[in-house]
Amino acid sequence: MGGKRRKFWGWGYEDAGPSTDYCEAAAALLAARLGCNASSPATAPRLEEIDLSPPGLSAPASLQALVSADPYERASHTYGKAYRDIVRCLRKDFSAAPDLVAFPRSEQDLIDIIDWLGSSGSAAIPYGGGSSVCGGVEARREAGRYAVSVDMRGLGRILEVDECSRAAKIEAGIYGPALEDGLRPLGLTLRHFPQSFEFSTLGGWIATRAGGHYATLYTHIDDFVESLRMITPSGVIETRRLPGSGAGPSPDRLLIGSEGCLGIITQAWMRLQRRPVFRNSVSVSFKDFYAATQAVRAIAQAALYPSNLRLLDAEEAMISGAGDGSAATLIVGFESFDHELDAWMDRALQCAADHGGTWAEGAGKTRKDQSAGREGAAGAWRQAFLQAPYLRDALLLRGFITDTFESAITWDRFPDFHREVISAVSSALETICGAGIVTCRFTHVYPDGPAPYFTVLAPAKPNSELEQWDEIKAAASQAVLAAGGTITHHHAVGRDHRPWYDQQRPELFARGLRALKRELDPGMIMNPGVLIDA
Amino acid sequence: MGGKRRKFWGWGYEDAGPSTDYCEAAAALLAARLGCNASSPATAPRLEEIDLSPPGLSAPASLQALVSADPYERASHTYGKAYRDIVRCLRKDFSAAPDLVAFPRSEQDLIDIIDWLGSSGSAAIPYGGGSSVCGGVEARREAGRYAVSVDMRGLGRILEVDECSRAAKIEAGIYGPALEDGLRPLGLTLRHFPQSFEFSTLGGWIATRAGGHYATLYTHIDDFVESLRMITPSGVIETRRLPGSGAGPSPDRLLIGSEGCLGIITQAWMRLQRRPVFRNSVSVSFKDFYAATQAVRAIAQAALYPSNLRLLDAEEAMISGAGDGSAATLIVGFESFDHELDAWMDRALQCAADHGGTWAEGAGKTRKDQSAGREGAAGAWRQAFLQAPYLRDALLLRGFITDTFESAITWDRFPDFHREVISAVSSALETICGAGIVTCRFTHVYPDGPAPYFTVLAPAKPNSELEQWDEIKAAASQAVLAAGGTITHHHAVGRDHRPWYDQQRPELFARGLRALKRELDPGMIMNPGVLIDA
Repeated sequence: MGGKRRKFWGWGYEDAGPSTDYCEAAAALLAARLGCNASSPATAPRLEEIDLSPPGLSAPASLQALVSADPYERASHTYGKAYRDIVRCLRKDFSAAPDLVAFPRSEQDLIDIIDWLGSSGSAAIPYGGGSSVCGGVEARREAGRYAVSVDMRGLGRILEVDECSRAAKIEAGIYGPALEDGLRPLGLTLRHFPQSFEFSTLGGWIATRAGGHYATLYTHIDDFVESLRMITPSGVIETRRLPGSGAGPSPDRLLIGSEGCLGIITQAWMRLQRRPVFRNSVSVSFKDFYAATQAVRAIAQAALYPSNLRLLDAEEAMISGAGDGSAATLIVGFESFDHELDAWMDRALQCAADHGGTWAEGAGKTRKDQSAGREGAAGAWRQAFLQAPYLRDALLLRGFITDTFESAITWDRFPDFHREVISAVSSALETICGAGIVTCRFTHVYPDGPAPYFTVLAPAKPNSELEQWDEIKAAASQAVLAAGGTITHHHAVGRDHRPWYDQQRPELFARGLRALKRELDPGMIMNPGVLIDA
Repeated sequence: MGGKRRKFWGWGYEDAGPSTDYCEAAAALLAARLGCNASSPATAPRLEEIDLSPPGLSAPASLQALVSADPYERASHTYGKAYRDIVRCLRKDFSAAPDLVAFPRSEQDLIDIIDWLGSSGSAAIPYGGGSSVCGGVEARREAGRYAVSVDMRGLGRILEVDECSRAAKIEAGIYGPALEDGLRPLGLTLRHFPQSFEFSTLGGWIATRAGGHYATLYTHIDDFVESLRMITPSGVIETRRLPGSGAGPSPDRLLIGSEGCLGIITQAWMRLQRRPVFRNSVSVSFKDFYAATQAVRAIAQAALYPSNLRLLDAEEAMISGAGDGSAATLIVGFESFDHELDAWMDRALQCAADHGGTWAEGAGKTRKDQSAGREGAAGAWRQAFLQAPYLRDALLLRGFITDTFESAITWDRFPDFHREVISAVSSALETICGAGIVTCRFTHVYPDGPAPYFTVLAPAKPNSELEQWDEIKAAASQAVLAAGGTITHHHAVGRDHRPWYDQQRPELFARGLRALKRELDPGMIMNPGVLIDA
C-alpha cells in the first residue's frame, strides 16, 4: 500500500481525493440544483472513538501470526463502501465488526484458517479490497456465532505469464494497480478497470462478476477467466486451463459470481490484452436521449465492438463535466495495438449521424500515442469516474445522499424500463427527501440491450439517512424488477440485493445452489447470508 | 420432414447424399492412399430384419396418443450417429432400443410424460435430432429399468420475434432448417450451423454446447442464449430474459451443457443476427502448417473477429478439395449486413503474409451479394462439410473407419499437443489397423488458443470394428487429456467421453453436479449415465 494508509471508515487513502475547495464547490452546485443547503462537513470518526466488543474467539497458536485483533483492522474490515456503510461508520456503529481479521500469506495458510473456522463453527468472510457496495463483506452473524474477515492481500503475486497465449496465472489477492504494474513491462494489460480499480482485487472481481471498462464484448471479468482455483471447506477445486470447452456445464461459470459463499478463489489464469497503441475517440451530442439510445443500439448491433460506448443523459453529462446540460453525450472509442481504427469509427459515426448525433469537425481520426482519449469530454469523464467514490464521501459528509444502482434490459423494453424506473425513483425521492435527481448512463452495451446505470442525488435528513436510503433502494429495486431488468448487472448481490435477487432467480436454481453449498460448505461457514441462507 | 423419410440406421434421408459413383471414387482414392482395398459396400439393414424385444412398459391411457412402440421409431431412436452407432446398426444390434418413443406436442405433454416416467421409475432419454456422436441419446439401462426416448420434434415453433433487440423465443424441438426458414423472411438468422444442422435441434444444441459456424467470438451456442426454460422432474426452471447480468452465478450457464441429465429444455430466447450482405473471403496457402498456425494466432489476437478462420492441414485440404496436398489452407472470411470489410480483410491478410501465407492476386475485396464465399476453395470446403456425414457412412459401408475428435488448447501448448496427439493416434492406427491417416483442422479459434479438430481414416477389420474404434478412441482421448486439452470442445460428453471427462472435471465440481441432480431429478430418471452416474 506504499506507506499510505487507507481510511477505516470511507473510500480510499487518508488525504487523497479531490481538494476541499473542489468538494465545497460541488456541494454548493448540488445544493443549488436541489434547492437545499449543504451542511457543514461532518467530522470523520477517529479510531479511538470506536467501541469494538472484544473478539469472541482467538486463533490457535499455530495461526496466531496470521490473525489480527487490531482495532484499525477490525474497523476497516467491518463494512464495504456502500452509502449505508459510510453512514454507519460516521455514526460510529461498528457492531458488525469481525471478531478477527486473518491475513493468509499462502494457500496453505488459507486452508488452515478455513479448517480452524470450520472446526469452531465460525463464519469466514472473504475480503478482497472491501469495495463492495451491496453488503458483500459484512458479517451478519446469527446469535453466538463468531466471524473472521479473511483478507486475501497476502496472495498478491503474478505467478506466470504466457505471452504466446496472452494469459497470466495470478493470485487472487492482487490489487488492480499492482496487477497492471506487473503486466505493463511486458506490454500486456488485463484492461479490467472497474470504478473500484485502486481498491479491489482480482479475486473480488471474479467472485462478484465485476464489470470492467470495455463497454462492449468483454463487459464482465467472466470473459477473461481461463481457469481458476478455489479453496472450499470441502477441498480444492481447480479447473483446467482452456481457451474454450464444451465438456458439460462450465465449472468456471458456476464459481464465477459465487460471492464467497462456496469458497475463496486463490488464483486464476486470466486472458490478457496487448496494450493499445492506436486510439480513436469521439464525443457525440444528441438533443434527444432516446434518439441517442437508438444510435447506441445501431452501433452495438453493427459488430464494430467499440471499447467505449458510454452514453450519459444530459444532466449526468453536465454533472461529470462532459456537457452543458442541454444534450446527451455519447463517447465512442476504439482502441487497438494492431491497426488503425478509422474504418471502425467512420461507420460508428454514420450510425450516430443517422439518429441526429453531432460532433466536432475533424474528430474521428486515429491517433497513435498514449495520451489520445485522455483529453476533452472523454478525459473529463474519465477523471470524474476515478474521483467519484471520493466525491461521494465528501458529499455524504455534507448532507447528501449519493448512490448508484444498475441493471440490464433488452432494447425492446428499454424505453418503458427507463421511464418507469426514473419515475418510481423520482417520486420516492420527492416523498422521502423532498427533492432529488436521478440520472442515467449506459456503462455497458450488448447487441440485445443496454446496461443502464442510475445515479441518485438527494438531500439527506440528519439521523434518518439509513431509513431514507432503505426506502429509496427498495423503490428503485422494485421498479427495476417489475420492469424486467436484473437486480444487478455488475455490482453483485451481496446481502443488500438479496430480497430482489431471490425474486429474480428461478426457485429451482436456488434449490440447486443450496444443494451445491451443502456439498462444498457443509458447515455453512462461507460468507453466510450472501446468495444463500445458512 | 417434408415427406422424406430418415434412415433408421445412418445419417440423413433415404436416397440423399453423394452419388454412388462419387462414393466409389472417394473409397478408391482413400484405399489407394491407405494402401488397402475398399470392400464392396455392405448392405444397409432393413427394418424387418431388426429384432426388437417387446416394450417393457406401456403408457397410461391418457398418454397413449403421445407414445409410439412402432419398430421404425424405436430403431431410429436407439442410437446417435457415431461410427460405433452405425456399425451396431449394420450388425442389426438394436439391443439398446428404447421401450417406447414419446412425442410430446406441448410443454404440458412433456410434464405429463416425465411424471409418468418418474412414477414408474423409467429412464427418460431426451432426443432432439439424434445427431449425437458421443452416446448422448442411447439408453444404457440398469437391469430391470425401462427407457423411453423423448423426441422433442413436436415443440418446434418460433413463438415470438423481437426485431428491436434481435432475439426470438423459440421452442427447443425445432430443427435447423425450419428455424432458419422462419427467420429468413425477417432478414434474421441464428447463424448457428453445426455440421449436423439439417438433423439437429435448438434444444440439442443448447444441451450439448454445440459449436456453430462462427470461427471466432460466437463459437458456441452458449453465447446466443438470452434465457431458457427447462422441465425437470422437480418442476420448471425459467431464467429471466436479459442481455447481461451479474446476479450470482449464471443460471443459464449451469443448464447449458447439462446434456439432458437435469431436465429437458423446452424453449429459449435466442440472440439473432441480421443476414449478411457484405462478404469477403480469401483462401491463403502456407507451405508450413506451424507457420500457418502462427498466422491464425496473429489474426485471432488482433481483435478482427473473422466469421471464418478455418485452417486445414495439407492432407485435409486435399481430401476436402481445397488444395493439392502440398500446402495448408487457411480460409479467412468476414461478413456483415452493415459495412464493407476491406479494412478488416486487409489487416488479416497482412498477418497471414507475415507468416508466409500467399493468395490469389486480387482477392480480398468485399462483395455485396449472396453468392460470395460459395465458390473456389471456400465453396468446395463448404460442400464437403455438409456432405461429410453422408460420405462417412458410405466409406464405413466400404470398410473404412472414419471418425473425428476435437479439443481446445492454449497457443503455448499447441505445437506439443498437436505432435503428441498425431503421434499417439498414428501409432495406434498402425498397430490396430495396419495403416491410417490423421488430419487436423481448426474449427474455432480464440485469442488464447485454437480448437483443433482431427479426422481419422483407416481400414477396418471386418467384425472387429467396434474393438478397433474403442482402442483408437482411447488412444486419442488419452493423448488429448495428457497434452492438456479438453475431451470435447463442442461434440459434448455423452456416455462415450465419460471416462476422460471424469478425469478432466474437478472432483468437487462432480460432487456439486451430483448434488444438483439429486435436487432436480431425485428419481434419477433423466438420461442416466450422461455426465453423472445414477
